[in-house]
Amino acid sequence: MTLSKSEKMWSRAIRVIPGGNSMVSKNPNMFVPNKWPTYFTKAKGCYVWDLDKRKYTDISLMGVGTNILGYSNSKIDKKVLQIVKAGNISSLNSYEDVLLAEKILSFNAWADKVLFARTGAEANSISIRLSRIYTGKEKIAFCGYHGWHDWFLSASKKNEKVIRKNMLPYYSSKGIPRKLLNSVINFEYNNISSLEKILLKNKDIGAIKMEVIRNTAPKGNFLQNVRKLANKFNKILIFDECSTGFRETFGGIYKKYGIEPDMVIYGKALGNGYPISCVVGKKEIMDTKRKTFISSTFWTERIGPAAALETLKIMEREKSWKIISKIGKKVKKNWQKLSLKYKIPLTIQGIPALTNFYFNDEKNNLKYRSFIIQYLLKKKYLASNTFYSSIAHTDEILDGYFSILDEAFYELSQSIKKQDLDQKLNYPISDNTFRK
Amino acid sequence: MTLSKSEKMWSRAIRVIPGGNSMVSKNPNMFVPNKWPTYFTKAKGCYVWDLDKRKYTDISLMGVGTNILGYSNSKIDKKVLQIVKAGNISSLNSYEDVLLAEKILSFNAWADKVLFARTGAEANSISIRLSRIYTGKEKIAFCGYHGWHDWFLSASKKNEKVIRKNMLPYYSSKGIPRKLLNSVINFEYNNISSLEKILLKNKDIGAIKMEVIRNTAPKGNFLQNVRKLANKFNKILIFDECSTGFRETFGGIYKKYGIEPDMVIYGKALGNGYPISCVVGKKEIMDTKRKTFISSTFWTERIGPAAALETLKIMEREKSWKIISKIGKKVKKNWQKLSLKYKIPLTIQGIPALTNFYFNDEKNNLKYRSFIIQYLLKKKYLASNTFYSSIAHTDEILDGYFSILDEAFYELSQSIKKQDLDQKLNYPISDNTFRK
Repeated sequence: MTLSKSEKMWSRAIRVIPGGNSMVSKNPNMFVPNKWPTYFTKAKGCYVWDLDKRKYTDISLMGVGTNILGYSNSKIDKKVLQIVKAGNISSLNSYEDVLLAEKILSFNAWADKVLFARTGAEANSISIRLSRIYTGKEKIAFCGYHGWHDWFLSASKKNEKVIRKNMLPYYSSKGIPRKLLNSVINFEYNNISSLEKILLKNKDIGAIKMEVIRNTAPKGNFLQNVRKLANKFNKILIFDECSTGFRETFGGIYKKYGIEPDMVIYGKALGNGYPISCVVGKKEIMDTKRKTFISSTFWTERIGPAAALETLKIMEREKSWKIISKIGKKVKKNWQKLSLKYKIPLTIQGIPALTNFYFNDEKNNLKYRSFIIQYLLKKKYLASNTFYSSIAHTDEILDGYFSILDEAFYELSQSIKKQDLDQKLNYPISDNTFRK
Repeated sequence: MTLSKSEKMWSRAIRVIPGGNSMVSKNPNMFVPNKWPTYFTKAKGCYVWDLDKRKYTDISLMGVGTNILGYSNSKIDKKVLQIVKAGNISSLNSYEDVLLAEKILSFNAWADKVLFARTGAEANSISIRLSRIYTGKEKIAFCGYHGWHDWFLSASKKNEKVIRKNMLPYYSSKGIPRKLLNSVINFEYNNISSLEKILLKNKDIGAIKMEVIRNTAPKGNFLQNVRKLANKFNKILIFDECSTGFRETFGGIYKKYGIEPDMVIYGKALGNGYPISCVVGKKEIMDTKRKTFISSTFWTERIGPAAALETLKIMEREKSWKIISKIGKKVKKNWQKLSLKYKIPLTIQGIPALTNFYFNDEKNNLKYRSFIIQYLLKKKYLASNTFYSSIAHTDEILDGYFSILDEAFYELSQSIKKQDLDQKLNYPISDNTFRK
């Protein structure tokens, strides 16, 4: 059997890169071990070409949320090409930073200042550093995923087990100084009393950090009540909108709920795939930067801010959050339809533009998921149980996907009936997913 | 008085960005408050154009060390343009990562695996996380500058004062959890007994992290002795070559000394200005990655690794480290010549390709420095007391610089004689430098 170029490259990768790649969510073992295409040579709209020149339609992660405006958006790329031709870095600074800061403040009216970084984890760490200086308190109450840095992986051993079970199977405090453990405490989404208990018990909490929405919508006045608790206990409220930003509003999803944070983080979609992230916050908190040392060479290059300026311009003009929400609703509706049609119970969750499903049959969930992924892959779709919609997902493309997915659900229902799924799975089932 | 575009932009910047920019070393107050051009619109070779379309020759930081092959190197930019046109990111991975990892291992023969990040601070933090897991010990003995992350700013309050005084005036543990303090301990360069004492006293040190060379060359067998101590006390030795890498050899400067680290960090020059950094290390240490969580969306884009592949190809072919060392030697020699000619005693330090001087008159050092910067700036040179050489610094360009610098030193010597320097300084003197 001859190996594909992808397979050969992956076998080289695992020899020289621990784990084989740089991001858990893009590890091929998350999808189809050995057979997922793994590498791209070209990407355009929602199409991706692999090393073997095979063309796929991406109905999955769209860069893990980076490309709301589609891959290789020609207007953004035009700006980036100009930047590359004129020079992306020098001993001087990028004036694009200033324009971008002003632009970002224009849709976060409560905020005064902006700091830039190049990854979401960096921006989250900046917000934690500044909030610790401002409040003089070190502990953080958190809810959601906030990156790989030390501060975030510092839950107590007991809390760590809960986090791994309920949310992040990969969460681990290995390699974090033991003294730091229990400096972050996880509270439960939609459970305001879990947060209140933590705040009552831990006087040394300075900030509440959370993703505004994860898989379920806020119930009752959960978010408003978080804001009230933050005020009552005098804590800084930090929203991490790396994943949710620009998917329901022009800016943070927090804007839908009539509440305001004290700081907000954007990343991922901000530069439509070009690395850029930022911390946006109130003056008195942001200005504590002068007391500490936060500085990085590569934060001064200008592809990131130039791409973000153009991305925001297009998003605002096209109202892209409305387009991708409409697309996401269609996909959710279709999943629901297939679930009923083939009597395969699903739980469908998430906001329309960042949605996912799992099979209610917990024991077989991963196996069923693998079957779907493998079936779609054979038909040249990159598709799993998670879908980040982009404006490149036209009706025609979606109809093609729905039609193949219908086949896949039909075959799955047959296999469940005949109990021959194990024979039908061509490749090993995938590892667990990064986030539950 | 009408303000220049640069001045107007800076006044907008300080309203919306704490400190005004993203990197201490590029803050205009480091050079000429209010009058330094601050922003670039174009950069090519060692020329930089500001917002007011004024053209400058950069005899200073060259992107703070990023651009050994000159700004906007046409061969590298050609590769980047291809990447942008084909798409820089997707749901799949960059195969360029694999090629780059293999290439980097080819000139770090003792190492087995590579991890990529996008800033030097990130790469340094990865190395610390992995070394803590591998050794099971949390404390770090360090020497040099290793970024803005929490782990590095965790010296004891007592040690912090020493670090600020001797090396990094901006070093601060504000905002770092108090429990973490004293988890890094600074040892003195060229003082092997300072390291030995620390290792004897702190059994819980797992790693020794250092810049291989800072301003002074290693004396005696200092570096070899550090390696010996690491072996004797069973510590991991990590070289941070973000600043020194590719300036004296094809790879780390450590290669000159017949020693090998257990891990090495590269950044800055690796992608000739396009963000990319990496951790290179032995298998058994690197593979501890599987026990922890290290992952980032933007580490999967491919401008960084593609630019680095082309950068390394050109560096290897041109032997750029030899070219920039020769250039640096010329500049050092010229500084020495002017010092003698005008009887202004200077201390000149650093490796040729990353050299600096200060005026031995400690009281007036900053004032003299400001005079030189202001004089050169009027003649359209970006030049201070630090010089990162690049292959774009031709003899003709250097001769132009030497000629203006001669004038500046002459004027300075006259002003010192006449004691009228304060009248001659047109603008405020600059802040302290980032690193002593």
